Amino acid sequence: MPEIGIGIVGGGYMGKAHAVAMSSVGAVFDTELRPRLEMISASTPMSAEKYRAAYGFKRAARDWQELVEDPGVEAIVIASPQATHRAVAEAAFSLGKPVLCEKPMGGTLAESEAMVAAAEKCGCVNMVGFNYIRTPATQYARQILSEGAIGEITWFRGEHTEDFYADPEAPASWRTEGEANGTMGDLAPHMINAALALVGPVRSVMAEVECIHTTRPGGEVTNDDQGQMMVRFENGVMGHLHFSRVATGRKMGYAYEIAGTKGAIRFDQEDQSALWLYLRDGPDAQLGFRKILTGPAHPDYLPFCQGPGHGTGYQDQIIIEAKDFLEAIRTGNPLWPTFRDGLDVKRIVDAAMRSSRTKTWQSIQPT
Amino acid sequence: MPEIGIGIVGGGYMGKAHAVAMSSVGAVFDTELRPRLEMISASTPMSAEKYRAAYGFKRAARDWQELVEDPGVEAIVIASPQATHRAVAEAAFSLGKPVLCEKPMGGTLAESEAMVAAAEKCGCVNMVGFNYIRTPATQYARQILSEGAIGEITWFRGEHTEDFYADPEAPASWRTEGEANGTMGDLAPHMINAALALVGPVRSVMAEVECIHTTRPGGEVTNDDQGQMMVRFENGVMGHLHFSRVATGRKMGYAYEIAGTKGAIRFDQEDQSALWLYLRDGPDAQLGFRKILTGPAHPDYLPFCQGPGHGTGYQDQIIIEAKDFLEAIRTGNPLWPTFRDGLDVKRIVDAAMRSSRTKTWQSIQPT
Amino acid sequence: MPEIGIGIVGGGYMGKAHAVAMSSVGAVFDTELRPRLEMISASTPMSAEKYRAAYGFKRAARDWQELVEDPGVEAIVIASPQATHRAVAEAAFSLGKPVLCEKPMGGTLAESEAMVAAAEKCGCVNMVGFNYIRTPATQYARQILSEGAIGEITWFRGEHTEDFYADPEAPASWRTEGEANGTMGDLAPHMINAALALVGPVRSVMAEVECIHTTRPGGEVTNDDQGQMMVRFENGVMGHLHFSRVATGRKMGYAYEIAGTKGAIRFDQEDQSALWLYLRDGPDAQLGFRKILTGPAHPDYLPFCQGPGHGTGYQDQIIIEAKDFLEAIRTGNPLWPTFRDGLDVKRIVDAAMRSSRTKTWQSIQPT
Amino acid sequence: MPEIGIGIVGGGYMGKAHAVAMSSVGAVFDTELRPRLEMISASTPMSAEKYRAAYGFKRAARDWQELVEDPGVEAIVIASPQATHRAVAEAAFSLGKPVLCEKPMGGTLAESEAMVAAAEKCGCVNMVGFNYIRTPATQYARQILSEGAIGEITWFRGEHTEDFYADPEAPASWRTEGEANGTMGDLAPHMINAALALVGPVRSVMAEVECIHTTRPGGEVTNDDQGQMMVRFENGVMGHLHFSRVATGRKMGYAYEIAGTKGAIRFDQEDQSALWLYLRDGPDAQLGFRKILTGPAHPDYLPFCQGPGHGTGYQDQIIIEAKDFLEAIRTGNPLWPTFRDGLDVKRIVDAAMRSSRTKTWQSIQPT
Repeated sequence: MPEIGIGIVGGGYMGKAHAVAMSSVGAVFDTELRPRLEMISASTPMSAEKYRAAYGFKRAARDWQELVEDPGVEAIVIASPQATHRAVAEAAFSLGKPVLCEKPMGGTLAESEAMVAAAEKCGCVNMVGFNYIRTPATQYARQILSEGAIGEITWFRGEHTEDFYADPEAPASWRTEGEANGTMGDLAPHMINAALALVGPVRSVMAEVECIHTTRPGGEVTNDDQGQMMVRFENGVMGHLHFSRVATGRKMGYAYEIAGTKGAIRFDQEDQSALWLYLRDGPDAQLGFRKILTGPAHPDYLPFCQGPGHGTGYQDQIIIEAKDFLEAIRTGNPLWPTFRDGLDVKRIVDAAMRSSRTKTWQSIQPT
Repeated sequence: MPEIGIGIVGGGYMGKAHAVAMSSVGAVFDTELRPRLEMISASTPMSAEKYRAAYGFKRAARDWQELVEDPGVEAIVIASPQATHRAVAEAAFSLGKPVLCEKPMGGTLAESEAMVAAAEKCGCVNMVGFNYIRTPATQYARQILSEGAIGEITWFRGEHTEDFYADPEAPASWRTEGEANGTMGDLAPHMINAALALVGPVRSVMAEVECIHTTRPGGEVTNDDQGQMMVRFENGVMGHLHFSRVATGRKMGYAYEIAGTKGAIRFDQEDQSALWLYLRDGPDAQLGFRKILTGPAHPDYLPFCQGPGHGTGYQDQIIIEAKDFLEAIRTGNPLWPTFRDGLDVKRIVDAAMRSSRTKTWQSIQPT
Repeated sequence: MPEIGIGIVGGGYMGKAHAVAMSSVGAVFDTELRPRLEMISASTPMSAEKYRAAYGFKRAARDWQELVEDPGVEAIVIASPQATHRAVAEAAFSLGKPVLCEKPMGGTLAESEAMVAAAEKCGCVNMVGFNYIRTPATQYARQILSEGAIGEITWFRGEHTEDFYADPEAPASWRTEGEANGTMGDLAPHMINAALALVGPVRSVMAEVECIHTTRPGGEVTNDDQGQMMVRFENGVMGHLHFSRVATGRKMGYAYEIAGTKGAIRFDQEDQSALWLYLRDGPDAQLGFRKILTGPAHPDYLPFCQGPGHGTGYQDQIIIEAKDFLEAIRTGNPLWPTFRDGLDVKRIVDAAMRSSRTKTWQSIQPT
Repeated sequence: MPEIGIGIVGGGYMGKAHAVAMSSVGAVFDTELRPRLEMISASTPMSAEKYRAAYGFKRAARDWQELVEDPGVEAIVIASPQATHRAVAEAAFSLGKPVLCEKPMGGTLAESEAMVAAAEKCGCVNMVGFNYIRTPATQYARQILSEGAIGEITWFRGEHTEDFYADPEAPASWRTEGEANGTMGDLAPHMINAALALVGPVRSVMAEVECIHTTRPGGEVTNDDQGQMMVRFENGVMGHLHFSRVATGRKMGYAYEIAGTKGAIRFDQEDQSALWLYLRDGPDAQLGFRKILTGPAHPDYLPFCQGPGHGTGYQDQIIIEAKDFLEAIRTGNPLWPTFRDGLDVKRIVDAAMRSSRTKTWQSIQPT
């Protein structure tokens, strides 16, 4: 089986998730291209060495530059702080190496645009890690929509809501500083990406973004607690998005509802193994939302599980992402979402921030 | 037991609901004041007579004027078409008779204002029949909020969504003509009323209202299929409302979610006997939304049911409304929602229509 | 409209429920035969008079004998204590008057048999008030089964579980004395009746019945807290039934699951407006239990409610029962469940008690 | 970090699951003892080599004997057909090597007893792979019970129901032959194990086991489609268990309900990230089953996931099992369930088969 040397930049939360995914994906999906855990880098050589041992890499890099340039590293996963995304990606692309970059792509719109330009100049595989989009349930939702099974879409509602800052007494931290760590910077991109994947490009937005608890034990809060936006998609569909880190009771409230002329879909990541589907396809007496448990009949269901209902977990999404990344490299067909898709998300976030300040609708220019 | 003569104007869908409620409420709630089904009127004397026999009234009136003026009619329920609401109400108030008026109050803002003026000049009981608000679940939600059990409210999301016009081939009818019969005129008032009852007055709105299927078999459609609005409540809470008659799969989607600093509430009329409550009140391991089945521990639960979980149905709400109307008359304490509350709802609907045209935020003047 | 004079024996909990039902049913269902609340009796003339005034009857009877014999009383509802059921029913039948008797029919098997004999000799309408069976959801479940939509039944599981005696400190009362008031006497008949209605006659049972908390504050407990039985239906289907008054967390746990070769059904009275249906009728990817909200497409849905999802409540079941009783009288076609069906239930309860003592399977003789 | 050489006997469905678990567990849980994928065996050397390459083992064994004896193999996972379990286990124990054996342990009761004897003589770690028991939700259920949070248990109901043979036209296969592959042999052990873990030892059972579809396309069916049993636990608790492969609509119906004097628990593997808990611990108005999403506050939640609600999948259970196996080896404290626990399960299955034939209660002798 052909192998490919993987280098992961960053060994924290997401670096670990990707490392485990790369060590499992070959066996799980019987991939044609098999990843080799070649090298890992971190903020210091010492922590890189610690991660190397913990995750089973062959070598630790002094820094990300060494990793990117190493000939044994043939594909790169960027899981380092957002401020480094652009530099790592540009270096990788200049060497023609495929990149899977954690979301959100760049710190600013300009940075994200530069990353897209570098990716497209290079022409190699470039993916953004909006991992929640990879569940079998949501992939199946995309399939239903593309097949027209629920007819023309007439409404989309999405949210990404959690409650880790719902308690006003929860102390300030790095999470309460900087736009990138606020709700719009950190949570919104996931569901905006889902909206784009499910309904299509967005034409304009009207948003409100706010910080509810402006001081917390330990300091001032300089970013946003929640935001909402009314959206118009290019295809004319009306929609609404809500994002919050103060949504008491919500733990992983990545959820959406889609109404169509012939049916409807509902999904909530808190029960990620189920997709709710309504089809107006029989006698009235028998119509209702059906709770479909994802299984072998759905895209990307783990072949581990012989039957449906065995359940997909968080880490499974990252494994599916790793499979798609390897397959994109093998075939040369970049899979969604690419850097350009990531840029679209970034543009919508930026327009929302602007709309909230000006209290006016903001257009999104198609990329 | 003291009695009161009830006159109902209109014998159609809602007239029947009120007639049944008035014939049951005394036994169900053991009310101190007992209704006597004195008189009913309709569009013609003949149909009034038909309703009289069907619902068990003592007499049929020639027209609403005769009914209002009849000395045996001591309290009036208005369940006739909206165009008649103002005239009937003014006539009743001029005679000092209490009124329970079906929603929405008046056809125009001016009409609604006139009705409030008449009610307040008269000083007698004046209620609007937003019946869904009367479920034990929603009354308990109001109690939870007033006791501060979920802390300060930080977010409200409400919807009233149904799908009776989701099919583009459903033919045009009286429902597809006239602003009063559109989604904003017909469905929105219910949930706007709930928002006011649960969170408080609204300061401003930013809305979109649209007709998706502008032609249907049988004719043009001249009113709206769906609408959404971002709202700011006077107390600073951010909110969102959505209304639709094309929400495929939704049958009685009168639903809301309220986040607070210490807890959260969720409700959906499609399972009206349950209220979902999250309280951050114990060890993390034990926190979760609890599904509370309404029962004797909750406001207005029907005393029929010895234990919880027996279930409340649509008609039960009208019976609860009848009980509250009788109690308001007996004690002289008008119960919520009064005509003034109905006017508040009307103002918000009007501002939303304006906002949708101007694409700007619209303020709501407190009444 | 033709009228019929109704006499209700007993004015307590169920007497009130039937009184309200009889006062509403004509308007609600636009019945061809209209009930007239003619007379009510109770344990004393004084309490009969109190009930008369409270529920709106024309007259109070001195005792049940007077009521049964009164010529104005043309149909009788028995809602008095179980010990009186037989005598009242026999008196009514001897005069050729139709009877709706609250469950459980007789205090003993012999009493129940005598009641069936009297009913069948008389030949007039005889119904037992297993009211939960009347929900639109369960009536629709029966229809699905009779149409073969889920194929051959392979499994039935039913329960009637509540928690009103779950707390060992809940004091002894009349409910903790006498077999008729135990779980097998009071709760089991409802779900056994449902099992018979849904699957058919029972051939044999193997049961366990037990009292968990044999003493409570205030006294000894002389009846059972819970019971379970494995059952074989005549058609060979395997089944299981469970009954409990100590099922903590359950409020109205009247619930069943039915598996068939082509589909499955689930129902829980705690959400009585929904029926869950699984049909193996399409591509694997789209299969799942669908949550059907009862509506106009289902049997006995209240015509009040124009659309589905408005919700059926406890009292609505009694109104549906009243409609069926009136219709049975009008047409002379006794509707299910008759006294004979009630006797079948009683025989199964008796066999279960015997099985629990002998620890052997007990056959049920078909009636 | 200290390492341990792992040998896996069998490379099919479960062999793969354990291989992936062993390659992930170190990174996922940061285990002190790290597994090294030393050797894999299969039915032929050729397929062993194929599995070696696919799963990343260092070496392929000619047969299980070579694997067990290899000095580099320090711990053994048995994932081969059940007929081989005993021989492999005895060989491993004779060399003092720890064993994790897939369920069900031995083909016969005698075989299982011999395996327990060998394990206990050896004194080394011996675990049975009832993997579903390892979800954070079920581990937390055990904790709740052991802390007495729901009081004294009064009722247990468990099921393991699937529908892979619900269609009578599904063809015969190896699954329809041999007691070990029937519902009692294959599915029942999982939920019996859960019952023992949650409530304690079983004293006696009364069971029914049946084959519904005795012929299928392709041949006769010689094992059972479904079974049920009433159980008495040693502590006096009444219970019921149901197992089926013909439960239409059920995909992974590993589900249980536990009632206690102070609370109740419900769980369904089809939504394995949730545990439903009812506590009678506050005002009546606030009581209800709460849906707890497993998270960092619960046992064995994957440290990957910073917050609750990220979701646990099927493979995650096997990783947790691997972690526990490694920890048992490191500390010398064999973790539940041991071979002795597996034998208890086997005894109950055997007694149930006997009870079904004799139609009498069967006692379970404590091991």
